[in-house]
Amino acid sequence: MAEQGVTPRSKDYARWYTDVVLKAELADYSPVKGCMVIRPYGYALWENIREQLDRRFKATGHVNAYFPLFIPMSFLEKEKEHVEGFSPELAVVTHGGGKKLDEPLVVRPTSETIINAMYAKWVRSYRDLPILINQWANVVRWEMRTRLFLRTTEFLWQEGHTAHASQEEAEEEARRILDIYTDFAVNEAAIPVIPGMKSEKEKFAGAVWSSTIEAMMGDKKALQAGTSHYLGQNFARAFGTRFLNKNNELEYVYQTSWGVSTRMVGAVIMVHGDDKGLVLPPRLAPIQVVIVPIWRKEEQKHTVLGEAEKVFKELQASGVRVKLDDREGVSPGFKFNDWEMRGVPLRIEIGPRDVENHVVVVSRRDIPGKEGKSTFGREGLVQVVRELLDAVQSSLLEKATRFRDENTHEVRNYDEFKEVLESEGGFIKVPWAGSPEDEVRIKEETKATIRCFPFEYEGEGGTCFYTGKKADKIAIFAKAY
Amino acid sequence: MAEQGVTPRSKDYARWYTDVVLKAELADYSPVKGCMVIRPYGYALWENIREQLDRRFKATGHVNAYFPLFIPMSFLEKEKEHVEGFSPELAVVTHGGGKKLDEPLVVRPTSETIINAMYAKWVRSYRDLPILINQWANVVRWEMRTRLFLRTTEFLWQEGHTAHASQEEAEEEARRILDIYTDFAVNEAAIPVIPGMKSEKEKFAGAVWSSTIEAMMGDKKALQAGTSHYLGQNFARAFGTRFLNKNNELEYVYQTSWGVSTRMVGAVIMVHGDDKGLVLPPRLAPIQVVIVPIWRKEEQKHTVLGEAEKVFKELQASGVRVKLDDREGVSPGFKFNDWEMRGVPLRIEIGPRDVENHVVVVSRRDIPGKEGKSTFGREGLVQVVRELLDAVQSSLLEKATRFRDENTHEVRNYDEFKEVLESEGGFIKVPWAGSPEDEVRIKEETKATIRCFPFEYEGEGGTCFYTGKKADKIAIFAKAY
Repeated sequence: MAEQGVTPRSKDYARWYTDVVLKAELADYSPVKGCMVIRPYGYALWENIREQLDRRFKATGHVNAYFPLFIPMSFLEKEKEHVEGFSPELAVVTHGGGKKLDEPLVVRPTSETIINAMYAKWVRSYRDLPILINQWANVVRWEMRTRLFLRTTEFLWQEGHTAHASQEEAEEEARRILDIYTDFAVNEAAIPVIPGMKSEKEKFAGAVWSSTIEAMMGDKKALQAGTSHYLGQNFARAFGTRFLNKNNELEYVYQTSWGVSTRMVGAVIMVHGDDKGLVLPPRLAPIQVVIVPIWRKEEQKHTVLGEAEKVFKELQASGVRVKLDDREGVSPGFKFNDWEMRGVPLRIEIGPRDVENHVVVVSRRDIPGKEGKSTFGREGLVQVVRELLDAVQSSLLEKATRFRDENTHEVRNYDEFKEVLESEGGFIKVPWAGSPEDEVRIKEETKATIRCFPFEYEGEGGTCFYTGKKADKIAIFAKAY
Repeated sequence: MAEQGVTPRSKDYARWYTDVVLKAELADYSPVKGCMVIRPYGYALWENIREQLDRRFKATGHVNAYFPLFIPMSFLEKEKEHVEGFSPELAVVTHGGGKKLDEPLVVRPTSETIINAMYAKWVRSYRDLPILINQWANVVRWEMRTRLFLRTTEFLWQEGHTAHASQEEAEEEARRILDIYTDFAVNEAAIPVIPGMKSEKEKFAGAVWSSTIEAMMGDKKALQAGTSHYLGQNFARAFGTRFLNKNNELEYVYQTSWGVSTRMVGAVIMVHGDDKGLVLPPRLAPIQVVIVPIWRKEEQKHTVLGEAEKVFKELQASGVRVKLDDREGVSPGFKFNDWEMRGVPLRIEIGPRDVENHVVVVSRRDIPGKEGKSTFGREGLVQVVRELLDAVQSSLLEKATRFRDENTHEVRNYDEFKEVLESEGGFIKVPWAGSPEDEVRIKEETKATIRCFPFEYEGEGGTCFYTGKKADKIAIFAKAY
C-alpha cells in the first residue's frame, strides 16, 4: 500500500500511461510477447464501449455474425495491396492436430478475405443485398514494439463488412458508419474527434478510400480512434462476389469495412486522465459512483454503514453503477486516492455528522480539491447524482475540446511548421497540395503525418504550406500513436 | 424457391440436422477445414444464450476479463494430464512477423494454463481471493470429423476460472455454477438436463472432479451441454499460484473452471426441432413472433399492411422480438413454411376480413396444423402474445421432459443393457460398481458411455448391472455426441 499513486502525467507522460493502466488494473502484460491481459476493470470499460457501439449498429440495421479465426494464406494473396500491407504482421499456423498442414493458415489480421469467400457463396441477386454484417472478434497483427491497449499483437475489435448493389449506397454506408463512430466518441467517450478522409498513403490496404476519426491525446499527439473504408469492388473482384442486378446483368458488389478496437480504451485514458490517474466519462465508467463510509469510533460504524447501504441501494435501483467501499483496515484517505486513481466520476462520503444532518458530501473527480466538493441533502439525492454525472460528462467533453482547439495551429510555410511542431506540438491545420512523396519526406523529417482531411473543411483550400501550389483541401498534420 | 423444406427428422436425423442448420441460415461451412461460419440468425441465438448466462454470472459476483489467444507450448506441458489430454488437438503457430518463433505458440484449446500464469502474479494473500473471472472467447481444438455447432475446430464459449482460499469454497463454486447451467438450460433453453458427476474416465484433463449437464437429443443420444470442474491445486502447483493464508502460511489456491459453448445451439436445435425444421424456445428465439399480412387484391394491401404495422409496433414497444414479413412476390404459404422452418414460436396472420372483424389469427409453432391456430381479438393482443409465448416455452420443456423420461430405461444385466441400447436407444439408468477398464470395454462393445452420476440419485445404489457387485451409485449410460 506504500506505493499508491502514479507517476504524474506532467512529469513523464509515457510512464504515467503505463502506471495508470497497470495500477488501475485495466490491463497487464502477459507472458506471451506482445499480448496483453485485459483485467476485469478494463474489460468492463470495453463492455460499455461495445454495448454503446452495438446498440448503434443494430439501430441502423446491422446484424452480428462470426467468421473463422483462420484464413488460408492463399486468400490474402488474392488482393495485391492487401497482402502487401499485412504480410509483415502475420502469425502463421503451420501445424494442426499433430500434423504439418498442406497450406499454412494465417490468424486473421482483419477479415475482408474470408468474409468475401462467404459472400461470394451467399449473394446471387440484388435481392440478397445489402448485407450489413458486423463481427466482434479478436485479431492478430504481429507487433515488435507494443503498448498496452494502443498497439498489441492481439487485440479485440468490431469489424463491419457490408456489400451493396451500388457504389453510391456503399459510399453512403461508409460515411454513415463514420457518423456513428463520431457520435459514439463525442457523446459516450467525451472525445471531440475530427472525422475526415485519410490520404492515399495512409489508407487501408485494399480500400478505394478510408475515413477516420482522429483524436488529440493529453500529450497533444494524435490517435486514430476508428476507421471506415469504402472498398469499391476490389475484394469482390478478387473473390468473384457478384450479383444479378435489376437489369439481369452480373455485377461485382460494392463493399465497405470499418472497425473500432480496444485502442479506444487507450484513447479514453489519454484524453481525460490527469496527474492522479484515470478520469472516466460517466457514460462509460464501470463504476460511476463510489460511496465511502467514514467512522472513527466503533459505535458510529453501524449508523454510518447503514446509511451508506441505503444510499447504495437507492442509486443502484435507479440504474446508477455504484460501489460501496466498506473495506475495513483501510483508511478513508487511502480509499479516496484509490478511487481517484481509478477514475470514478463521483465519490460520496458519509460520516456520522452527515447522517445526523441528513446530508452527504459529493466530490467530482474532474474538479480536484475543495472546488469539486459539495454537500447535498439526502432528499432527492438520486436526482442530484444524475445531474452531476451529466455535468461531469459535458465538462469532460468541453475541456477536451478546448484543449484540442488551443493546441491546433495554423502555419504559412514548412519552416513555421517544423518550428511549431518542435516547440508546441499538437495539430497543425494547413492547406495541402503535396504528393504522397512529399508526405513521406515530411514524415521522415518531422515524424508528423497527415491525420486526415477533415470533412468540416471540405470545399476550403488556400496555398499549400509545403509546395506553395494552390491547394483545394485542408489537412491536419500531427505526430501520432 | 423450389427446394424449400428440410429432410424430415423422422427420415434421416443426421441429414435433417444439417439441413436445418444450413437452410435456417444458422451456420455455414467455411473454406477452412473444420471451421464454421455462424450466420446472423445463429449468432443472434448465441447472443441470447450469452446474455442469459452472463446475467447469471454477474448476479453471482463474477466479472469478465480477457486473456491471450496464444499460449506458450511449455505452459501446457506443466500439467501432465492436461497436456496429454489436449496435445492431439492443438493448432500451433510457428511463425510470427515473418520470422520463425523461438518457442511455438499454441492457439488456446482452453485457458487454465495462461490464466494461472497471471493468477500466480496477482495473488499474494487471502485478501486477494476469491478471484471470480469469466472469459467469453474463441478456442481451437483440431477436429477431424466435424459437425456444425457440435464439433468444430474453432468454437465460441465462455470459460470461467476461479481461485479460492479453501477446498470447500472452491467445490461449492463448481457446484453453484452447475446449478446456474441447469437453471439456464431448463428455464431459458427448455432443455431438461440431468446434472451430475463425470466418471474418472470422462473427467476434464487436469481436474480433480468434473460435473456436467447432460441432455437427451431428439434421436435419444446424449449431449454434454456444459461442464464445471473442481481443479483442486493441480494447476496452482504447476504454476506456483500461492497465497498467504490467515495463519500466515503459503498455500496453493483451490480452483475451478467451467464452460458452455456454441454446442448449446446444437442442443437447442436437436431437442426441440421437428420434421419441418427448427422449433425455438421463445426465451432464446431471435424472432419470437412473425407477422404475415395477407391480401389478394391491390386495394386490400393498404389496409392489411397498415394493420400489420400497427400490431408490429405494439408488440415491439412491449419488448417482444417481432418481425413483419412484408416481402412482395412471395406467397403467404411460402412465408408460413419459411418461418416454420426457422422455428419462430408464434405466427400472426392478418387478412382483410381479420381487419374488418378486429381479430388476428395466431399459430403456435409447437402445435402443428389447425390445433395450434386460434383467432384472437385485436384488443389486448400484447397480453395474449405474452401468455402464448410463455405457454410455448413451458410446453416445450414438458414435451422434452416427457420424451427423456419415456426413453430412460432400467436394466438388470449387461445382456438387457445391450438389447435395450440396440432396440430402443436412449438413456439407461443403472447401479454401477465397475472400474474404468469396465467402462472402456462397454464403450468398445456398445459405443455407450457413462454420461454422469446424477446428483438426483446421490446416496442410492443397488447391484451393478455389469459386475454384479454392490453399487453405491447410479449411472446414466448412453451413446453420445
